Amino acid sequence: MESVKLGILGMGTVASGLVNIIEFNKSKVVNNLNKELIINKVLVNNLDKERNVNLQKEVYTTDAYEVINDKNVEIIVELIGGINPAYEYIKAALNNKKHVVTANKALIATHGSELENIAFKNNVKLMYEASVGGGIPILNTMRENLCANELESVFGIINGTTNYILTQMTENELDYDQAVKEAQKLGFAEADPSSDVDGDDAAYKLSILASLAFGQKINVKDITKEGITKISKQDIINAKELGYNIKLLASGIKKDNKIELSVHPSFIPENHPLSTVKNEFNAVFLKGNAVGEIMLYGKGAGSLPTGSAVLGDIMYIVKYSDKEAVNNENKQKYIIENKAVKQYYIRMTVVDKPGVLGGIASIFGKHSVSLASVVQKQKNGNHTVSLVFITHESERINIDIALEEIKKSETVTNIESILLVENFR
Amino acid sequence: MESVKLGILGMGTVASGLVNIIEFNKSKVVNNLNKELIINKVLVNNLDKERNVNLQKEVYTTDAYEVINDKNVEIIVELIGGINPAYEYIKAALNNKKHVVTANKALIATHGSELENIAFKNNVKLMYEASVGGGIPILNTMRENLCANELESVFGIINGTTNYILTQMTENELDYDQAVKEAQKLGFAEADPSSDVDGDDAAYKLSILASLAFGQKINVKDITKEGITKISKQDIINAKELGYNIKLLASGIKKDNKIELSVHPSFIPENHPLSTVKNEFNAVFLKGNAVGEIMLYGKGAGSLPTGSAVLGDIMYIVKYSDKEAVNNENKQKYIIENKAVKQYYIRMTVVDKPGVLGGIASIFGKHSVSLASVVQKQKNGNHTVSLVFITHESERINIDIALEEIKKSETVTNIESILLVENFR
Repeated sequence: MESVKLGILGMGTVASGLVNIIEFNKSKVVNNLNKELIINKVLVNNLDKERNVNLQKEVYTTDAYEVINDKNVEIIVELIGGINPAYEYIKAALNNKKHVVTANKALIATHGSELENIAFKNNVKLMYEASVGGGIPILNTMRENLCANELESVFGIINGTTNYILTQMTENELDYDQAVKEAQKLGFAEADPSSDVDGDDAAYKLSILASLAFGQKINVKDITKEGITKISKQDIINAKELGYNIKLLASGIKKDNKIELSVHPSFIPENHPLSTVKNEFNAVFLKGNAVGEIMLYGKGAGSLPTGSAVLGDIMYIVKYSDKEAVNNENKQKYIIENKAVKQYYIRMTVVDKPGVLGGIASIFGKHSVSLASVVQKQKNGNHTVSLVFITHESERINIDIALEEIKKSETVTNIESILLVENFR
Repeated sequence: MESVKLGILGMGTVASGLVNIIEFNKSKVVNNLNKELIINKVLVNNLDKERNVNLQKEVYTTDAYEVINDKNVEIIVELIGGINPAYEYIKAALNNKKHVVTANKALIATHGSELENIAFKNNVKLMYEASVGGGIPILNTMRENLCANELESVFGIINGTTNYILTQMTENELDYDQAVKEAQKLGFAEADPSSDVDGDDAAYKLSILASLAFGQKINVKDITKEGITKISKQDIINAKELGYNIKLLASGIKKDNKIELSVHPSFIPENHPLSTVKNEFNAVFLKGNAVGEIMLYGKGAGSLPTGSAVLGDIMYIVKYSDKEAVNNENKQKYIIENKAVKQYYIRMTVVDKPGVLGGIASIFGKHSVSLASVVQKQKNGNHTVSLVFITHESERINIDIALEEIKKSETVTNIESILLVENFR
């Protein structure tokens, strides 16, 4: 039987998942491809480490270029992560006319467009399904199955760590710090969780998703971003009472010739399909101008789910690599404009005395922020109360200016939270 | 620019959606394919009918073979539905070495395997994404993106009519008959809704889904099937109280060398993603041995969503038709065995006097049906009460034998409902 030889850079969680799937689903893979996949060379840091995969000692090397320059290898699978040296390795592999499969979101978000051009010039493929949503086949679904659609919006819960934390805060009424510890204990959060909880990871993934959805290179820096570190139990309780769940929502919305992009903790209506995406699960919710609303849901991380996406890409290349490469032009078609015209949830602590609410409401009004609802919440015992406002759709800049003025009032103790309310209209 | 010429059989809802998408997303399609799609010939019944599409009069014909034998046409799109004459037309088209795209679930469920063989022999493609789940790209996702996985189970809410009816019964507390009328008024149910409400439509779709998921031809007659006509408002209220929603669930579960297949109204836990699939929406929930749980959600019917799936297939053929056809062997690998070992919900009306419950419980016990919970519900005013039982996992045959005996008891007025409880384990 014909075979296709793979070189793998890295042998961590995803790589070992990949190797294991290739082994335990061997007959499935062979039936599908009519070819065998053989792992020819694997880059590791330490040749002596015991690994949970069934590979001969001889395949391992500590020299990346022994993998990248291996004449027999047709496909390089990059699973070391991070930008350097992965960037140099992938460039070298593509220029060696080898196809590349990667799960590296930071690299694709940063250099994807350039690397796609290099792949195109060398008539090889660069695929990165696993870089967004782990096992969920979202990129290939957009690329292939929804190719008849102009996509109008893409929303995603694409960071499992924050989703786990927020779910635990919601369902088990944990504080933020308790939920982070719980996530760390279960391996859903790293010792330093900042790249997840600050929204960086989700922003990388959104830039990849939105670039593909809208056919235009989206830079991470064009995404307005806010993490979940300031979400309190009180906000989650308030959200529930109002019929919402709080999720870290990545969103890209196209209107006319403009695109808005943000990663922001958001109120999601409890009857919306994204509201039911819990714990470490991810989902992407799209609107196409023909297909309407579509959601894909699944595991956003993990050895086997992510390995499944990597292997899907490898199998696609084996089946279709003789197809001419397509140049994703990524012309600048749309203007990125983040006015963030949304409904907002604002919680503040104020002194409990007559006239305070009226004063705040009139400052909002002065700055064109109209209020959909106001709820006075629990007394805090020290002569203060919590006020919760839901605004009508307003530009974020107006909200910020109004709050700047409100903050100066002697009767306002603190602005506690500002969150988006996403109604998916 | 190069072009690919299409022949369309039928010009109903889906076909007009297809033609309209080809027009309004023309630049998207052309950019993706580097070719133009041209509609060369269209079969209709009535040449004079006004149609909501922008096509020249000359393309229409009332002679199917003028479409099928058109030398310029590379792809035949069959959208007339029903088994005859669609079956003959598709056979003729494939034997003419034309690719075929169809949305015809009854035909594919019945003759799909034979037609795939004819396509294989002629080295052309037969694609039918739109036959299951309308716009949801479920078949191609299983075929391509999840090709690295052995699929273990497939669950689906794949009939929009019944899902609309059950959602309305649940959310607006309508009776079954009221909900059917509502669905008919909105075009979600036909004047004679029997093929939907009896579960035939879902069974056709499940046979297509499961054939692809398990790589073995599944006949519709191997699927145990029950419709929703006997679901009462009381069952829906009971389900809610117990933390479930009632859905018409299609399921295919592989265990060792056996497959169980059923379409049955089922209790779905309210926190399961399938529970949030409402009204006319559809979803398919899969478990793969690598990817884990995946769900795809979207519109299961309608002109544009279904047209989007048809166009996705057409574009796939244009891009990949030069790939050698694959023979889907569909060897008999698994035994179909419908023991239906599930938890069951059973509601019955009994005379309100001491000892009745004990008698019923001991009959269940005698037939190896153990009870997880029993609730005595409202009194009915005529000296009867409702009893609701949830069993532990039991074979359906034992449930039926026990109920046969229970029915004979003088104190049991009626067995009202038997529904599955699906916990997705």
